[in-house]
Amino acid sequence: MDSAEALLFIDVQQAIEDAKWNRYGPRNNSEAERNMKRLLDGWRAKRWPVYHIRHDSLEPDSPYRPGQPGHDFKPEVAPAAGETVIAKRTNSAFIGTDLEATLRERGHTILTVCGVITNNSVETTVRMAGNLGFTVYLAEDACFTFARPDWEGRLCPAELVHALSLANLHGEYCTVVTTEQALARLRLF
Amino acid sequence: MDSAEALLFIDVQQAIEDAKWNRYGPRNNSEAERNMKRLLDGWRAKRWPVYHIRHDSLEPDSPYRPGQPGHDFKPEVAPAAGETVIAKRTNSAFIGTDLEATLRERGHTILTVCGVITNNSVETTVRMAGNLGFTVYLAEDACFTFARPDWEGRLCPAELVHALSLANLHGEYCTVVTTEQALARLRLF
Repeated sequence: MDSAEALLFIDVQQAIEDAKWNRYGPRNNSEAERNMKRLLDGWRAKRWPVYHIRHDSLEPDSPYRPGQPGHDFKPEVAPAAGETVIAKRTNSAFIGTDLEATLRERGHTILTVCGVITNNSVETTVRMAGNLGFTVYLAEDACFTFARPDWEGRLCPAELVHALSLANLHGEYCTVVTTEQALARLRLF
Repeated sequence: MDSAEALLFIDVQQAIEDAKWNRYGPRNNSEAERNMKRLLDGWRAKRWPVYHIRHDSLEPDSPYRPGQPGHDFKPEVAPAAGETVIAKRTNSAFIGTDLEATLRERGHTILTVCGVITNNSVETTVRMAGNLGFTVYLAEDACFTFARPDWEGRLCPAELVHALSLANLHGEYCTVVTTEQALARLRLF
């Protein structure tokens, strides 16, 4: 039995462990992978649709480039048989892919999103999904990001980069929820 | 003589003067409209293409709703005859519009973007433009935003919201430039 309620993983590949991401400071949400796994287990138990968006970087020195060990999915949330894998080459999972067409064809109109990094591919994909008319839930504790400087050179810790990204998205492009809230919704069905 | 170099104004309508935007604190970049006008004068002097993206809000209480006084363009950068007006209903100027098709058909592949607000319609449009393969320059001092709380409730001044948005965009979706740098590029031709 299929459902309208799809779970989307964004770029959850080994490459996100590369040291380059930590150059300005540590990531936030150390429990994010555990929460992603909780979402995945919940969706699988319901036999609800799961989409794994995989970044196939075109940049020669990216750890996300196909052929690099970083290109592999993180094992804790790797795709199972029957789950859809969508390869992308830009930040948005909707550009240069058949994601939108596939979701519409299958009637998967309600998306719960998690993955990395909050303020880049996750945010771009959520902005587009909301503008395309999908109902989007973003699991705040099943995504994470890293510290970075702002345009004036001020160092922003990962918690701030993450929290400002969520604030920009909530109510405008999506509803921000916790993993627990996403699973509570799932248990209603 | 047409050029590949289009100037895009995002949502520069009277509605942005509405008091609701200031509820968490003042805007930044008080000189933004003056810089938008400098860009517009530069583009017009070259007879380069100018696009005015207009937000036609569907929300009943939005000052951007058609029929409200706020729906009108700000007079200092209002469209002239021959300039293209594109109406949109979401944040992204590319969704539900013919902007992408028009730009490609006319060969306008290099976009200089300005307008409001940095972290919402400007950012969403720049993220999509970059991912769609356009070359994008974002004029940092010809856009602005407002203070807002982050997801943890911490008040972020407009300068921080703006600067973190620019940092997220630069090098990934666009090149952030000053108005002066954009005009210096224009003078090369």
